[in-house]
Amino acid sequence: MKVTVVPVIVAALAILAVALLAVPQVTPPGPAGTPDPDLLYQVSVIDALMQGAYDGVVPVGELMRHGDFGLGTFDALDGEMVVLDGTCYRVGMDGAAHPVNSSILVPYADITTFERETVVPGISGMNMSQVTAALDTALPSENFFYAIRIDGTFPSVKARSVPRQEKPYPPLTEAVSHQAVFLWHNVTGTVVGFYSPPYTEGIDVTGYHLHFLSSDRSMGGHVLDLAVEDTPVVLDITPRFTVVLPESGDFTEMDLSGDLSQDTALVEK
Amino acid sequence: MKVTVVPVIVAALAILAVALLAVPQVTPPGPAGTPDPDLLYQVSVIDALMQGAYDGVVPVGELMRHGDFGLGTFDALDGEMVVLDGTCYRVGMDGAAHPVNSSILVPYADITTFERETVVPGISGMNMSQVTAALDTALPSENFFYAIRIDGTFPSVKARSVPRQEKPYPPLTEAVSHQAVFLWHNVTGTVVGFYSPPYTEGIDVTGYHLHFLSSDRSMGGHVLDLAVEDTPVVLDITPRFTVVLPESGDFTEMDLSGDLSQDTALVEK
Repeated sequence: MKVTVVPVIVAALAILAVALLAVPQVTPPGPAGTPDPDLLYQVSVIDALMQGAYDGVVPVGELMRHGDFGLGTFDALDGEMVVLDGTCYRVGMDGAAHPVNSSILVPYADITTFERETVVPGISGMNMSQVTAALDTALPSENFFYAIRIDGTFPSVKARSVPRQEKPYPPLTEAVSHQAVFLWHNVTGTVVGFYSPPYTEGIDVTGYHLHFLSSDRSMGGHVLDLAVEDTPVVLDITPRFTVVLPESGDFTEMDLSGDLSQDTALVEK
Repeated sequence: MKVTVVPVIVAALAILAVALLAVPQVTPPGPAGTPDPDLLYQVSVIDALMQGAYDGVVPVGELMRHGDFGLGTFDALDGEMVVLDGTCYRVGMDGAAHPVNSSILVPYADITTFERETVVPGISGMNMSQVTAALDTALPSENFFYAIRIDGTFPSVKARSVPRQEKPYPPLTEAVSHQAVFLWHNVTGTVVGFYSPPYTEGIDVTGYHLHFLSSDRSMGGHVLDLAVEDTPVVLDITPRFTVVLPESGDFTEMDLSGDLSQDTALVEK
């Protein structure tokens, strides 16, 4: 029998080799393949979130196929999302950040592949409006999307998280009235944010939308206010934009024809 | 030997099966591959076109990789675009339609892969507003994008084309004041159109945007008015939307913060 074992193994290996060669090389999973680094991928539209479309529709694992840098929230508005360096964190009502399971569903999020395209030497601002005014002067054009990354030690960061909601879901204006607010001084970490152009009103949070994650990845939230002292800002210009609309949940029946821009500004800033 | 052949084949087949199972199934190729049929791909935003961003930025050949059904215009606003059954036609100031070269650049267009998802048995309307009111009742939700295809003989179609513009480009309101208008009675052909939800104002022509191509593919244009008599309408629900922003031309410097919705309605309808 010993004589026949070797040919059997050789034949089997040959068949295995042919089988492997015959199957085309596998691209990264899913229809989108490698993510387009110049594309901002968004789940749902802000006017739907504003009206309580908190049902998760895209799993975190699917979201993460479209980038490594982003923000958003989770099913039932259960906390703030920060995606940094390829890990998706959830910030709960205690301000603590934890990596999340890839099966958790997302009702609203923005994600892209962060590229260090433009480094603005250093911006300073005592509060949110001074900081965004400084960022305004740094943008090459107001008509593109930008991913914005600021690593540093911040004189102050005021952030919030939101409590998990129960159905029937209230609008976001009501949900954030129960938010938890955190104020940190001389905190080291990363601002993870986006700028969206004015013509995206209704779809996106226009202007600046910033979240925060501490350098030890232990805490964070949606930025309500911050001070920045001579800190470089890295911009990633993003000229392509994809919106994925919820095909389930309350989205289909909502009246999305109104102008919610004032409510959005109130809730987000 | 006969005794050992069967086990060898069994072993080889088992190894082959394991090898095939171990390699994940191949998904359609990356960003350049098969288009997502449920995605509406748009070049630029309507508020930029309204302000004269007529410089072509995407070649027709690239546009056609994202679908077989669409509408738009060409570099320097040189005519109306109709994409039907995978061919891209240009309608000039004489109302004549001709297939275009794939190298021609496009400043604004919408394209998708048309799928016959919902057939509305028959709609009627004596004019554009009656027709769109009838379409309104046919949409499963006002919050998605739809590609709309109507094949039939129409009691009347009033269409237009626009003249090629010279730099510095005037706004679209001025350019269309020199449009050519065509009125056909009992004309057989296809309405190629889209419905875009209200929250896309500034990005897209909200509501209905219809172009026309005759059944012999000899004439067409942007539909200004039409009558429809008991004709089925085919809808393709499109829950994903990609916008590609111009990285060259006048787009970067434009002020896109204003509300141009009334001008857009005037120009498009």
